[in-house]
Amino acid sequence: MATVKLWTDEEAAADPRVRAVFDDIRATRKSDFVNNFWRALANQPAVLERTWASLKEIMVAPGELDPLTKELIYIAVSTANSCAYCVHSHTAAARAKGMTDGQYGELLSIVGMASETNALANGMQIPVDPEFQVDR
Amino acid sequence: MATVKLWTDEEAAADPRVRAVFDDIRATRKSDFVNNFWRALANQPAVLERTWASLKEIMVAPGELDPLTKELIYIAVSTANSCAYCVHSHTAAARAKGMTDGQYGELLSIVGMASETNALANGMQIPVDPEFQVDR
Amino acid sequence: MATVKLWTDEEAAADPRVRAVFDDIRATRKSDFVNNFWRALANQPAVLERTWASLKEIMVAPGELDPLTKELIYIAVSTANSCAYCVHSHTAAARAKGMTDGQYGELLSIVGMASETNALANGMQIPVDPEFQVDR
Amino acid sequence: MATVKLWTDEEAAADPRVRAVFDDIRATRKSDFVNNFWRALANQPAVLERTWASLKEIMVAPGELDPLTKELIYIAVSTANSCAYCVHSHTAAARAKGMTDGQYGELLSIVGMASETNALANGMQIPVDPEFQVDR
Amino acid sequence: MATVKLWTDEEAAADPRVRAVFDDIRATRKSDFVNNFWRALANQPAVLERTWASLKEIMVAPGELDPLTKELIYIAVSTANSCAYCVHSHTAAARAKGMTDGQYGELLSIVGMASETNALANGMQIPVDPEFQVDR
Amino acid sequence: MATVKLWTDEEAAADPRVRAVFDDIRATRKSDFVNNFWRALANQPAVLERTWASLKEIMVAPGELDPLTKELIYIAVSTANSCAYCVHSHTAAARAKGMTDGQYGELLSIVGMASETNALANGMQIPVDPEFQVDR
Repeated sequence: MATVKLWTDEEAAADPRVRAVFDDIRATRKSDFVNNFWRALANQPAVLERTWASLKEIMVAPGELDPLTKELIYIAVSTANSCAYCVHSHTAAARAKGMTDGQYGELLSIVGMASETNALANGMQIPVDPEFQVDR
Repeated sequence: MATVKLWTDEEAAADPRVRAVFDDIRATRKSDFVNNFWRALANQPAVLERTWASLKEIMVAPGELDPLTKELIYIAVSTANSCAYCVHSHTAAARAKGMTDGQYGELLSIVGMASETNALANGMQIPVDPEFQVDR
Repeated sequence: MATVKLWTDEEAAADPRVRAVFDDIRATRKSDFVNNFWRALANQPAVLERTWASLKEIMVAPGELDPLTKELIYIAVSTANSCAYCVHSHTAAARAKGMTDGQYGELLSIVGMASETNALANGMQIPVDPEFQVDR
Repeated sequence: MATVKLWTDEEAAADPRVRAVFDDIRATRKSDFVNNFWRALANQPAVLERTWASLKEIMVAPGELDPLTKELIYIAVSTANSCAYCVHSHTAAARAKGMTDGQYGELLSIVGMASETNALANGMQIPVDPEFQVDR
Repeated sequence: MATVKLWTDEEAAADPRVRAVFDDIRATRKSDFVNNFWRALANQPAVLERTWASLKEIMVAPGELDPLTKELIYIAVSTANSCAYCVHSHTAAARAKGMTDGQYGELLSIVGMASETNALANGMQIPVDPEFQVDR
Repeated sequence: MATVKLWTDEEAAADPRVRAVFDDIRATRKSDFVNNFWRALANQPAVLERTWASLKEIMVAPGELDPLTKELIYIAVSTANSCAYCVHSHTAAARAKGMTDGQYGELLSIVGMASETNALANGMQIPVDPEFQVDR
């Protein structure tokens, strides 16, 4: 159903730029599985390299937010943007990082609640309280 | 700029249903400040009551996600939905709950990155890997 | 705050294509008021003409849905699309066509509820029941 | 294709909270059919209970808007939010409540027209006319 | 999977309004292929006629933007709006009009980048610089 | 109205990472003007550096799409995502790169038309024609 072909391992191995990224994905994740997102991006090596570099820096490198919290935020954005692929891949990633059923239920509740109040606030065009503004 | 009037404290005090919700907001938050969202919803007491009841259950009651994580998810959804009011109010709430500059920077990075990969996945209509499907 | 200038009545009167549309807006609505949307579109006469022609056919000409129901649907879409201008103009239009406070409260409730269940359905990527498919 | 399992009738019958909601859905709708949305929500009983309670209050209880108008608004929001599941389920619901082909054609026209003018207004960032503001 | 039936050539031939549009699509595109979008719209002849007339005027008639640039813009909007059908059909159209792999990769990069900076700007609610405003 | 402070030139000059990016923005654009987007991102130096590096690579470096076409695509995405800031800044950029009134009118027409057909295709959940699928 894609608008581009999905690269096989054989095709990826034959292109040095693509192979380098696939190798780094496997090494970083300690898994042989390379999901379709990267197989589709392989059609555009520059986009593939830049996207993986950013994702690794933002989602993999240690920071102040723990890995599971990062995935919950990712699922929330992907749901609001109606990205079926991203919802699936990051829900699987969150589960692999230990998301419990209780946490998932709360995530869904918050995403639903936020979408509802977003609609109410946009529907009434409520002005921002001065208390919420950052002084300068 | 709203499509509805924002209720003053005097007006709220004169309507039993609105007063009850405003009182509970103040008691729950241990603060006299009632933000414009509730002052706008006061025009529709049934919507006001139902929305506050849900928000209290989802965002205030103890659960498996800590209060700051809940706010980060709320900001993420509100950003993706372009709700200016909600971005402002929940960013202020997250700061009040201890969000550091480092955490905020990571949140922005993740929301930006997710929006980018959402666009790439939707743009190429990448099929979901069977590995991400839930068996039944 | 616009990216284009808003045409004054004097400027509109000096351009035959713009004047013709402004005249028809006034005649159709039986009001001298021409709102900013049309004053902005006047910068592009072809877009102005086509947009007004479509709007008149869809929103003004008699059909199977009554005028108020049409406005409620318009507000719903504009809210979901975060169009501040459109929310304001069509809420005013709905009020002018008789929308009661009770109807407005129900509209807001439905738009909020739909946004919430949209997020829940997209968040869990629920498959469409065969019962909802149209046979062929 | 879901990120969660869909509960069978047997599984639902074995969980008192889920069974109670399923029973009420069947009684309220006077039909044995329980669609996938509720079978997916069953994984999170608290979300299931809260969502059904809200939906019943907003969409089923008598109000100032008739049931078909409510469904048209629901379809409009679901379309703007790109929720495939919700578009399917509420279009089927609207048909069951008597939506004619003519009404459906007008709904589609309005949703399309609103989306177009939303884009035009957002694209030119047209300022809201003072006439549309609510005085306070 | 549609909510409406898709008209066959036989059915289209039997309805004068639908046949006229299908004939014009084939003549304009110099191809016998009529894609599902039009076969679905055929259920609503007025919507079919108006949509085809607008599309022909905007996308087919000569203007200041070349045909390929128009398709790139169309893909960009369709991606941001999560319209799977439209992404597929206009990516195919862009390829038919000569889009190279290099151009496609740049398009995807820009759509991804814009989505990311949209999220950053909305997430921080950055005020518009006076330099970007149009004087009036 | 921002959720963060906007850095002045004095503040930027005092932080080596921020100063380096601001200097490069000025050198690349051959202009002393640094718009608010970068002054807001300055609060998060890592996000500032990464975002500018990507934008420079995608929007400034020579490629197969000309600079004006890139800006038109950027406006289209920003409009669909309801990003007021981005619509303003990139419309100004497009004008600076030579966008004519005629091209702007066509851009608006296409963005509006695409939004309309996106809604129609999503509203009817039209299945993708096999002819649009990429073989594998």
